[in-house]
Amino acid sequence: MFKVLRTEGNARRGEFTCAHGTVQTPVFQNVGTQGAIKGAVSAQDLKELGCQIELSNTYHLHVRPGDQIVRAMGGLHKFMNWDGPILTDSGGFQVFSLSSLRRIKEEGVYFSSHVDGRKIFMGPEESMQIQSNLGSDIAMAFDECCENPSPYEYVKKSCERTTRWLYRCKAELDRLNSLPTTVNPQQMLFGINQGGTYDDLRIQHMKDIAQLDLPGYAIGGLAVGESTETMYHILDVVLPHAPADKPRYLMGVGTPSNIIEAVWRGVDFFDCVMPTRNARHGHLFTWDGIRNLNNAKYQLDDKPIDERCNCPVCRTYSRAYIRHLLKSGEMLGQRLTVMHNLWFYNNLMAEIRKALDEGRFAEFRAQWSDRLSQRI
Amino acid sequence: MFKVLRTEGNARRGEFTCAHGTVQTPVFQNVGTQGAIKGAVSAQDLKELGCQIELSNTYHLHVRPGDQIVRAMGGLHKFMNWDGPILTDSGGFQVFSLSSLRRIKEEGVYFSSHVDGRKIFMGPEESMQIQSNLGSDIAMAFDECCENPSPYEYVKKSCERTTRWLYRCKAELDRLNSLPTTVNPQQMLFGINQGGTYDDLRIQHMKDIAQLDLPGYAIGGLAVGESTETMYHILDVVLPHAPADKPRYLMGVGTPSNIIEAVWRGVDFFDCVMPTRNARHGHLFTWDGIRNLNNAKYQLDDKPIDERCNCPVCRTYSRAYIRHLLKSGEMLGQRLTVMHNLWFYNNLMAEIRKALDEGRFAEFRAQWSDRLSQRI
Ligand SMILES: [Zn+2]
Ligand SMILES: [Zn+2]
Repeated sequence: MFKVLRTEGNARRGEFTCAHGTVQTPVFQNVGTQGAIKGAVSAQDLKELGCQIELSNTYHLHVRPGDQIVRAMGGLHKFMNWDGPILTDSGGFQVFSLSSLRRIKEEGVYFSSHVDGRKIFMGPEESMQIQSNLGSDIAMAFDECCENPSPYEYVKKSCERTTRWLYRCKAELDRLNSLPTTVNPQQMLFGINQGGTYDDLRIQHMKDIAQLDLPGYAIGGLAVGESTETMYHILDVVLPHAPADKPRYLMGVGTPSNIIEAVWRGVDFFDCVMPTRNARHGHLFTWDGIRNLNNAKYQLDDKPIDERCNCPVCRTYSRAYIRHLLKSGEMLGQRLTVMHNLWFYNNLMAEIRKALDEGRFAEFRAQWSDRLSQRI
Repeated sequence: MFKVLRTEGNARRGEFTCAHGTVQTPVFQNVGTQGAIKGAVSAQDLKELGCQIELSNTYHLHVRPGDQIVRAMGGLHKFMNWDGPILTDSGGFQVFSLSSLRRIKEEGVYFSSHVDGRKIFMGPEESMQIQSNLGSDIAMAFDECCENPSPYEYVKKSCERTTRWLYRCKAELDRLNSLPTTVNPQQMLFGINQGGTYDDLRIQHMKDIAQLDLPGYAIGGLAVGESTETMYHILDVVLPHAPADKPRYLMGVGTPSNIIEAVWRGVDFFDCVMPTRNARHGHLFTWDGIRNLNNAKYQLDDKPIDERCNCPVCRTYSRAYIRHLLKSGEMLGQRLTVMHNLWFYNNLMAEIRKALDEGRFAEFRAQWSDRLSQRI
């Protein structure tokens, strides 16, 4: 269930409720690909870092340990010891990006596992079955994500198939949710809008999938090759056609600036591997911009990563120490940097929500959108 | 300052006080080689794991980030954010084991850095200077650790030189501690007994170094190639000649069984990389023996690593989940297993102390010494 509490222009301050709790939006989902967060960060740590909702990858968990095993262990919440909301992706994105050998058919996709090469088939029904076994709160529809740019005709046909797949996803998830032994019978389905960088395809596809009256809609197929301007343009074009009373999730995006700009255009949910991935390379998000801890100037710097940050890392450790850990290849360096970056993202969303609550998001955007992306 | 509170046979229950607090002995020192514990475990985590004293490696910190940097950051306690006791080794062991190119002279050792190959000289004075810059509570004497077996004549000459080096260490540390800008002017020096597997050399060397009336004595050069029986024999032979009112530290040892047996013979301090190293390979210490989590039988096992363990990991996570993390190469797997193993060792020492307090250590030894080393 989604409730818009307040708006400012196209931006929305909302509240989303699912089986494992209520999420304040706009929200950033913290990515735990294989049922754990990269950098030795646990579900318990996520609580401390202000995470409201965790995102896990269906494809990875299907391949290892196997969704049947997760189901036998009581579902993903119990398995990884996270009692808050979980969203699982459909597996589609990994199937299309990780597998070199794949064939797309009307029934689904044939591909080889990236772990052991064994042949796997995944279609809408299989994706729903796997996500049902994982027992997430939000299951994502099985779709095809085309890279940008792709030919118009290809994207058009792909969108039409993705719509047909969406009907099959809904039918299958309804069936699974009605079974007596389902892990989480309140599992919700979010549809995914595609259409590449073509305005008319985007709009038509959004209209088509809006028909299903799903509890949420994602914008997929962005941040996959197109320019930032194009991405913002597509959001401007398509969001007016997304159901106003349902949450909108911009998949795989992005930098702090991207997030502020997308909230401005009406997006409610985000996810991105950037805070974890950049952290591991020593790139830290701060309210002054992006700090590269590998820089020699931090060798004797006893200040925290970000002097305005109140995260468990900044409350305790110096730039000099964390730099030493990264240089020495100590895993603790990755843990501390990932923790800071996730806190930063979660805290950024809290500040965005506060600005929306207080009707000063336009001002917030003017103050921070450019600044947070500069390298310092 | 060391106080023996109670004895049972040769075993001792004691209390050791240094600049950063009081340590209950027998104690296991938790190894943080480069100012961090392997497996993304922080100094804050160590508190939660029952660690009383942390051990850091002088050689590693000298090479990276450099002891001058640690000194400039206020010393190792401040740098790594650990306010409890710290012992630093002398760097000698790493110089002798990590460097392929080295020349031992009366003045010290010439060798090449394992990081960048640059030429380094380290002698007793340099080792003390580096440890003084780190500001540990206990500095270890600079010694030569011969592998076992080594020729009698070589070991004899080596011991004599190690004794001469010890006098130089003491003189230099006394000088450093008297300087007004010293990080930790209460830094203590522990001497190290050598002598390979030769009873007479061991005894003579212990008598020689006991002359200096140092605040503690270590037994070095064991667990470096000889059999367990030989190690126990050397302890039986040499410990009666160690000053009874000073703590005895058996360097680099060992398994839970080794520790119980060495406590039985009169050892007070231990350190070993085994709990961290084994953890990372999925080998977990438990009160039932050593459990290999890689085993397929744990795939659906929702029990904790050790049902008798009350560590933060066993309170929360299942064998199945941790096994999945290890199999997936998730760093979190290493963090959780290292945390359990360190807790196990720290808790083992607490149980040993309790048994000594209650005069039932002989019984404790009979019950656990063999059992803890069996593979299950
Ligand atoms: Zn921070
Ligand atoms: Zn445990």
